[in-house]
This record gives sequence, structure tokens and C-alpha cells, in this order.
Amino acid sequence: MGLIERTVSSIAAPDSAAYERARGRCDSLIKPPGSLGILEEIAARTAAISGRERPEVKKKAVVVFASDHGIADEGVSPFPRDVTWQMVRNFLDGGAAVNVLARQVGADVFVVDMGVDFDFPNGSGVVSKKISKGTRNFSRTDAMTQSQAVRSIEAGIETAFDLAEKGYQIAAPGDMGIANTASASAVVCARFGVPAEQIVGRGAGLDSDGLIKKTGIVKNALKKHFPRKAASAIEILGKVGGYEIGAIAGMAIGLAARRVPVVVDGFTATAGICLATAIAPAVSRYLFFSHQSAEKGHSKTLEFLRARAPMDFGMRLGEATGALLMMTVIEAAVNLFNEMATFESGMVSGGKAREKT
Amino acid sequence: MGLIERTVSSIAAPDSAAYERARGRCDSLIKPPGSLGILEEIAARTAAISGRERPEVKKKAVVVFASDHGIADEGVSPFPRDVTWQMVRNFLDGGAAVNVLARQVGADVFVVDMGVDFDFPNGSGVVSKKISKGTRNFSRTDAMTQSQAVRSIEAGIETAFDLAEKGYQIAAPGDMGIANTASASAVVCARFGVPAEQIVGRGAGLDSDGLIKKTGIVKNALKKHFPRKAASAIEILGKVGGYEIGAIAGMAIGLAARRVPVVVDGFTATAGICLATAIAPAVSRYLFFSHQSAEKGHSKTLEFLRARAPMDFGMRLGEATGALLMMTVIEAAVNLFNEMATFESGMVSGGKAREKT
Repeated sequence: MGLIERTVSSIAAPDSAAYERARGRCDSLIKPPGSLGILEEIAARTAAISGRERPEVKKKAVVVFASDHGIADEGVSPFPRDVTWQMVRNFLDGGAAVNVLARQVGADVFVVDMGVDFDFPNGSGVVSKKISKGTRNFSRTDAMTQSQAVRSIEAGIETAFDLAEKGYQIAAPGDMGIANTASASAVVCARFGVPAEQIVGRGAGLDSDGLIKKTGIVKNALKKHFPRKAASAIEILGKVGGYEIGAIAGMAIGLAARRVPVVVDGFTATAGICLATAIAPAVSRYLFFSHQSAEKGHSKTLEFLRARAPMDFGMRLGEATGALLMMTVIEAAVNLFNEMATFESGMVSGGKAREKT
Repeated sequence: MGLIERTVSSIAAPDSAAYERARGRCDSLIKPPGSLGILEEIAARTAAISGRERPEVKKKAVVVFASDHGIADEGVSPFPRDVTWQMVRNFLDGGAAVNVLARQVGADVFVVDMGVDFDFPNGSGVVSKKISKGTRNFSRTDAMTQSQAVRSIEAGIETAFDLAEKGYQIAAPGDMGIANTASASAVVCARFGVPAEQIVGRGAGLDSDGLIKKTGIVKNALKKHFPRKAASAIEILGKVGGYEIGAIAGMAIGLAARRVPVVVDGFTATAGICLATAIAPAVSRYLFFSHQSAEKGHSKTLEFLRARAPMDFGMRLGEATGALLMMTVIEAAVNLFNEMATFESGMVSGGKAREKT
């Protein structure tokens, strides 16, 4: 049994007794019952995931998985391929959006090279899990071999295990890779059998001609790679995916196995989650969705996952930036749960609404 | 000329040149243009409001205006009137939701007694602007006199000026008052000429019978107080408002006059904002809306104000809790704006999307 199978089979359900106790505690806090909305649900789910009476999400991590994409050769991004490694350097230097937000939120940033077309010097700070210098062009051939697909997921699992080992209590996988929304779109379309036109969007800022071209490329690739029936998650990843998308899937699976809440970023991260839940449906109980991306396919993809993103800032950057904003909200939910006075301790009169609950 | 008129006439427009420079800077940061969505707009508006090249929102305040309501006698809340003063005590003790969130976000909490039916001991920490021990029951008579209405707004303006004097760079008015959603609903209905059925909601958790009763009470009060034509904001406040609602309006007006961004909480705060923008339309350019409350009338009220709340956690607590979560997002926007590398400094290749902007 390989690492993926072993990890999937070790995913347990969150602790439902802890969940019920936490919901009860929510109703004892000095506020009208239910008035903190999904923050109450978030706190209770966090208690259930960790199995702790008083959950903690202080130690936070984001992992940016970076990789290049053969499909970039088709001109599906307004930015050149070099931007992938240049942005990795900025992640390491602390000047990218993810770094700024992570500093504010108090999260540590890890940068994993899954397949960037660049040789980072030793001591650069990048974690190397490089599979190759970028996937192949999926409009012409399979993006990767099946064993590379498996390897990308395993790299994500290993990353999750490392984080759990280091005591991280919440984590978010993020992405960097020029042209990766083309790959993410193809993954979502293949996974849910939906036409390219409904999912493919402007990515980093394509104009209308660029969007038409990108849509056509994804559409043809889907026809070529998935002529007939549904494919497995690993087949989809191999044919049209990206190494960072596989790693995101693996990280979610690995975190679920280690009972660590997973915060889901925007479109590319959600594409990885689509694969994770196909491989291990139990992962879904460890997920916290964050923001609605402005990238066209995201809202539909969330629908397929029966998920709702509670924030909509019109962001479409990736790098786990939206997930970091949600981490603050999750921390708020947990702090409220842990620190608010109760009706008893705060000496507040109960109401009719409270008596009924 | 009274304090309100003087303050209103001193509100200047935000600095449009600073806004344009800030938008230009947003496009120079290492990300696809526009990919931070409304965070870019927030940063630019913050620059325009403060008139600074590099805005700052580090020093943050929330003010909870507390007051009692005569309409509580009609049983429009599932909680007894005593909960208002009991919650004030919890705000001072640091155990309420607003305290927990303010600690996380790094905001200072001020508690202002606008008209609580309780004598707080000296040294309790509450700021007294008490007008009377609660409004009168607006289903029978005017909630307050016109001079009390004016006074409640002035108290909010004074509070804003104090905050500006102390160097606060961003602030949110919040509310506490048993039965205040009844008053807030009546204010919104009167302000926009909309029937009670469209706005009145369950507040702190009324059951269906309670909701029907509350709706009927507001409906009859509107008929009684506003038989014919539209009333001015101060008339509306006097007839059906609350002292804390007037103070919220005043605080927004005062902050706008001092060029301090105003973060708008949920339904009751938004009712105050409806009055503020009626008195001084220029206030709207200083507002940052935060969350969509679960209270029924909030989404419609935001529509009337042509506002959009970017977060929806199903919260309905008041106390500026939703505004505090938004303060983190505004701080994130400003941090990104100030701290991200530029294409030049980060040595990142530009793209076609960038060249076009």
C-alpha cells in the first residue's frame, strides 16, 4: 500500500461528541443563541477536528507550492513563464502578498518547489520537492506520467505531515505557477464533467481574445484526454493537472489524516481540493472555505463541492492570500469560543430565545 | 450654528489626487493588476481619506454606544431590559464578543452610556453621555424630544472628535440596547419609505409569533408618526429612534469631518448610517461596509445605501463585532499597499495585462 492509500485510510471522522459539547458551550456564551452565525459552527468544527475542549489555531502555516506548466507555451497567461521563479524569490524575500498577509495574521510561510523551471541555489530557503522542470504541454500530450502525479500528491502529504510534526494547528495550501488556472480549469471540468466554457476564466488578466483562445485550448484538451468516461482523480491530475495542484490535494489529505484544519484558498487551490475529495471524501470535513475568487470558474466549482465561501473581496491572486484572511476569522471564532464570558460567569439574564435552546 | 451643522459643513471630499496616485501604486505591486480586488480600492480610498501617500490604520477604536428603549415594554425582544446594563458591565470587564475581537485585532474599546436604565458607579470606565434612562415607548409617543435627538447626534460627534484627537486612524461605532432592532427597523422604514414587513426581523431571536407582533408594532408606529410625507433624519430619530442610533450617526459625521475611515457594522449601525448620510451625504465617502448581517432588513438597507458588504458570516450580534473583522481586512489592504514589493524592486517581469494598464 502506497503513501496515498495509507494516509487516506487513516483519516478519521471529527469527534462528534466534542462537536456537540462545543455547540452547547456556544449557547452558554453571553450573546443571543446563534448570533455569531457560522463563527459558532467554525469553533465547534475546530473543536471536533482537534478533539479538544478548547481548540487552538495559534500556530498557523501557509505553504505556497510553486510549479511551471507546459501549457504556458500556448500563451494562456499574460505573464511570461519566468514570473514563476521570480515570484518564488519574492516569497523567500518576504515581499509578496502572501508574506505581508502572513506577517499580519501570524502565519509562517513555506515555499515548496514542485517543479519550477529554475535552479534555486542551496540555502535559498525553498523546500525542494521538484519532480521536473515543469509539466508538459497538456494540449499536446499528458502533463505528467501517472507516477509523477502520484509523486506530486505524496509531496503534499509529506508536507502536511511535516507541519503536523512541527505543531501547526491550522494550515492552508497555496499556489504559484504561470498558466496554472488553465490546468486548474481542465481539472475541474474533467472532475465534474462540465464544459470548458463554464469554467475557464481570465486568470492573471487575459483580454477577451486571450480568454477565447484559452477556452478553446482547454476544450480541445478535454476532448483529447477524456474522450469517453469519467477518469480517476490521479488520471485527471496526470493528464491535465499541475504538480502544485497535486501537492495541494495531498496536503489536504495529509492534514485531514493528522486532524489539522485546512483552509481553502481560491480557484487553483479549490481545483486541488476537488481531487482531494475525490480521492478521500472524508477530507471535506476538515475543510474551511474562505473567499469567493473573481476567477470565473470558482463559484461553480464551490457549488459542485457543495461549499460556500463567506467572503468576497473580488480577489484572484492565489498564493493562499484569501485563505490567510479566513485564518483570521477562524482564529476569531476560536477566540470568541474560548474567551467570552458565559451567561453565568457574566451574570447576564437569559432570554426566551435562550430558554428554548 | 449648532455642532451638527458646523461639523457637516466641515466635511471635505477625500483627496482625489492621492486616490489616483494610490491606484497607480497598486498596479506597480508584484501581482496581476486588479488581482487584490476591493483590497486595492480600500487601500486607495484610505490614502485618499487620510491624504497620506502611505496610509496607516494601526491605531483602531470601536465605540459601543449603549442605551435602553421604551419599546422594550412591548415585548419586542426575547431578552429582558436588564441585559443592556449587564452587557455594559461585561464590555467593561472584557468578556463580551466585542472585547475578544478587539483584543485580536488590536483595537481599543470604548463604552458610552447614551441612556442605559442603570446608574453605573464612578470609575466603572463607562463614558457617560446619558440623555435619560432610556427612550420612551415609540408605539405610544415620541421616543425622544427633538432636542434629545440633536443631543444624541452631538454626543456621537464629540466621541468622534475625541478619537481623532487621540490619534485613532480608523474607528467603528457599535451598539448595545435591548429592543434596538425594533427602533432601527422603524428608522430605516421611515427613512426610505418602505413597509415594516420588508425590514423588521427577529432581532436577538424572536420566534414567529414574536416577529409578527414586532412587525405590527413597527407598522402601526410608522402610520402614527409619519402619516403623510417624508420626515427629516432628526425628526425620524426623535420619533422612533434610539440614543445609540443617533450617536452612531453622529460618530460617522464627526469621523468624516476629521478624515478618519468609518467601519460600518450590522443592522443597527447601518440604521445610524442611514441617518448620517441623510444629514450629510458626503459621509458616504468615508464609509467601509463590513458584513452582511443575518437580521432580515440589513440586505435591503444596504441596497438603499447602494452599499455592498463583502463578508457574510450570518452574524447578528451588533457590538461592532462584524466591523472588527472588517478592520482586519482594511489593515490587510493597507499593509499590502505599503509593504509589497513592486515589479521593479522585486525584479519581476511585467505581462501583457500589466502593459495595458
